[in-house]
Amino acid sequence: MAKTLLKNADILMSNGVIEKGDILIDGSIIAAIGIMPSDCKVDKMIDCTDKLAIPGLVNTHTHAAMTLFRSFADDMLLMDWLQQKIWPAEAKLTADDVYWGTMLAIAEMLKSGTTTFADMYFFMPEVAKAVAESGIRAVLARGMAGVAPTAESALVESEAFYNQFHNASDGRIKVMIGPHAPYTCPPDYLKKVVSLAGRLGAEIHIHLSETLDEVKNCEQEYKMSPIKLMDQLGVLDCGVLAAHCVHVTEDDINIMKQKNVRVAHNPGSNMKLASGIAPIPQMLKTGLVIGLGTDGASSNNNLDMLEEIRLVATLHKANTLNPLVVPAGEAVRMATSGGARALGLEKAIGAIEVGLKADIVLMDMSGLHWYPRYDKLSLLAYSAGQGDVDTVIVNGDILVEKRQLTTIDEEQLKFEVQNRGIRLTSLT
Amino acid sequence: MAKTLLKNADILMSNGVIEKGDILIDGSIIAAIGIMPSDCKVDKMIDCTDKLAIPGLVNTHTHAAMTLFRSFADDMLLMDWLQQKIWPAEAKLTADDVYWGTMLAIAEMLKSGTTTFADMYFFMPEVAKAVAESGIRAVLARGMAGVAPTAESALVESEAFYNQFHNASDGRIKVMIGPHAPYTCPPDYLKKVVSLAGRLGAEIHIHLSETLDEVKNCEQEYKMSPIKLMDQLGVLDCGVLAAHCVHVTEDDINIMKQKNVRVAHNPGSNMKLASGIAPIPQMLKTGLVIGLGTDGASSNNNLDMLEEIRLVATLHKANTLNPLVVPAGEAVRMATSGGARALGLEKAIGAIEVGLKADIVLMDMSGLHWYPRYDKLSLLAYSAGQGDVDTVIVNGDILVEKRQLTTIDEEQLKFEVQNRGIRLTSLT
Repeated sequence: MAKTLLKNADILMSNGVIEKGDILIDGSIIAAIGIMPSDCKVDKMIDCTDKLAIPGLVNTHTHAAMTLFRSFADDMLLMDWLQQKIWPAEAKLTADDVYWGTMLAIAEMLKSGTTTFADMYFFMPEVAKAVAESGIRAVLARGMAGVAPTAESALVESEAFYNQFHNASDGRIKVMIGPHAPYTCPPDYLKKVVSLAGRLGAEIHIHLSETLDEVKNCEQEYKMSPIKLMDQLGVLDCGVLAAHCVHVTEDDINIMKQKNVRVAHNPGSNMKLASGIAPIPQMLKTGLVIGLGTDGASSNNNLDMLEEIRLVATLHKANTLNPLVVPAGEAVRMATSGGARALGLEKAIGAIEVGLKADIVLMDMSGLHWYPRYDKLSLLAYSAGQGDVDTVIVNGDILVEKRQLTTIDEEQLKFEVQNRGIRLTSLT
Repeated sequence: MAKTLLKNADILMSNGVIEKGDILIDGSIIAAIGIMPSDCKVDKMIDCTDKLAIPGLVNTHTHAAMTLFRSFADDMLLMDWLQQKIWPAEAKLTADDVYWGTMLAIAEMLKSGTTTFADMYFFMPEVAKAVAESGIRAVLARGMAGVAPTAESALVESEAFYNQFHNASDGRIKVMIGPHAPYTCPPDYLKKVVSLAGRLGAEIHIHLSETLDEVKNCEQEYKMSPIKLMDQLGVLDCGVLAAHCVHVTEDDINIMKQKNVRVAHNPGSNMKLASGIAPIPQMLKTGLVIGLGTDGASSNNNLDMLEEIRLVATLHKANTLNPLVVPAGEAVRMATSGGARALGLEKAIGAIEVGLKADIVLMDMSGLHWYPRYDKLSLLAYSAGQGDVDTVIVNGDILVEKRQLTTIDEEQLKFEVQNRGIRLTSLT
């Protein structure tokens, strides 16, 4: 197996930054961290002078192929946006469109330092194909809506997709079951979902309590919050990755803690869609596992996890008038080890540690916004940008080198997505 | 005078984006916009294919030299931050430090598309020197605190600074009078400031109603809000650029409208310092002039106006649960023509228009996050990053070309600020 040596890197460890250390990658694994002997034989050596090695960023919630709708419809009421713009365009999507839209998302994520993403969409074998070809890591779920004509076929597809792709591509692909949300999946349907998940031993990726309206409607119809309803239906016993959780009560948070519901917090999307501000400081205090996500590019409108780090570290300060909540280290943790835990991948990724998978990003610190340098963790959280991402390694493979993608043809990609986007959003 | 032709640019005009147009710059002025004849004689031609030409961004509030304290102290209570960290370090600042810290800020601002900034600090002749040498445009104010030992000398310095530098450097430098804030400038002192400003015909740059504590203390001591107090003291009659205005009432906003107080809104700083969320939608409805600012780099922690555009367009949606407030165009306007009006420079800058100064930024749209392209204004507001800034022109001069500074030695700058930073923040 190929050995790669990252030489002279500053390394972001879980307990601080090591200065001028080496990282030895053997195959897909981090084999050693420290100062390697000068006669250490490797296949490739990367000079990491003036680079900060950080764990690959984990995007815990997106709809990758929705890059195809980036900038197509903004600044609209949620229902207008969905009914007038997104749903009619999505109705035209082909399998090939989803492949190319996903590839655009993957390319953008890699170039901005994301090495793992959790996706919920449809035509999922195409998504898996893009993941396999690009080399990124992903946790995929076929989105299912119990109110849609595809309700039953989505269950069948989900099972087949799980059986075919869970642990595929050298383990880079994991599969979850993806009921869209309580308001699109009635209780009877969710019972089928729980039964399917139980049978497969699969976990669940779902949107929960994203908007105030959703929560109000649920309270009205079921006399309880979406979190409580999910608990009653047994959803929370499957192991749940819950996206958003913006409008949750203290009771809800306690239930989530008890059932180890892991939260995918999407500050950028929650802000842009005017969903609100999730009570992240309370969740942290209660000890919930929290990862960060971008949500789809049509509600963000980029897939830049460094932006989400900055947002989580500042939004909750403004909202609580407390500058001590979500400090830099906590924000970076959410985007790395927190994300790994949210996806159930903490034994494989989320930190630069011997024995873990080599998912590593080299941040170029030569930009002016990295000066002066007192605290590199603070600079990463509050000053860095996606333009600083120099090299991205996933599963030991170099997928971005000197800011260039190694596995994706960028020009072809742009051509495909522009043409497909125009077709999808045209009126006829 | 030198003529420069920007050829084949997409151009962000006040009423939308022109595709594939030319901009002719004659000396410091935009001489023509449209399709230039092929025999048009110019000294320099820039091919702007795949570039979006936008008005230079206007940063309406910063303390430039505070770049020297970037990442030195974060995630602290405001008073701990000031008393334990910032003030002791600032006490060591020399004139040379301020020159180099300002130059770092200017270099960073230029590379991220800012062409004009409003500054409040001290050793202001050094700031003016950095502005003169770099070629950027600035509105400078000597910060004054009535409670400080330098209270009287600051008035004298301010007058001398105004007389020497207002309209200096081919008009690129304007000077305002800079009383720091109501809580550091008691009424008697502010009366002297108003008298000085009146005598000079100068406008005022001041911090107002930044924190809840400030407003509470003012209410307690003077039985009125900081805005009302300023009105009573005649400050608002001088022409005022008011930074922050986070905690203002409807009454305050009406007074501000009546007195044409222009707001420098700093969403990033207000979030990071946990100051709160300014009622920008109400201010817009009332018709206040609003510009955007980064505040100092030690409370942000970068000087990236594209981030502030994204924040203003999303933060207020989350805060009001209304996705229609501060749409993309409004956010970009605040960073361009709104900023120009806030600084009293609307007859010179803030738009790409024939007769205005040639302060123009070329955004490189080749990045993946600019695909697909349905709406370039939306892409600029919601997807773009400072890494997309390719060329920056101020007063007709090219200060950034293909991402490289033309007037500042970047390596020398890094060396100076790193060494000075270490000295300033060392314990002894």
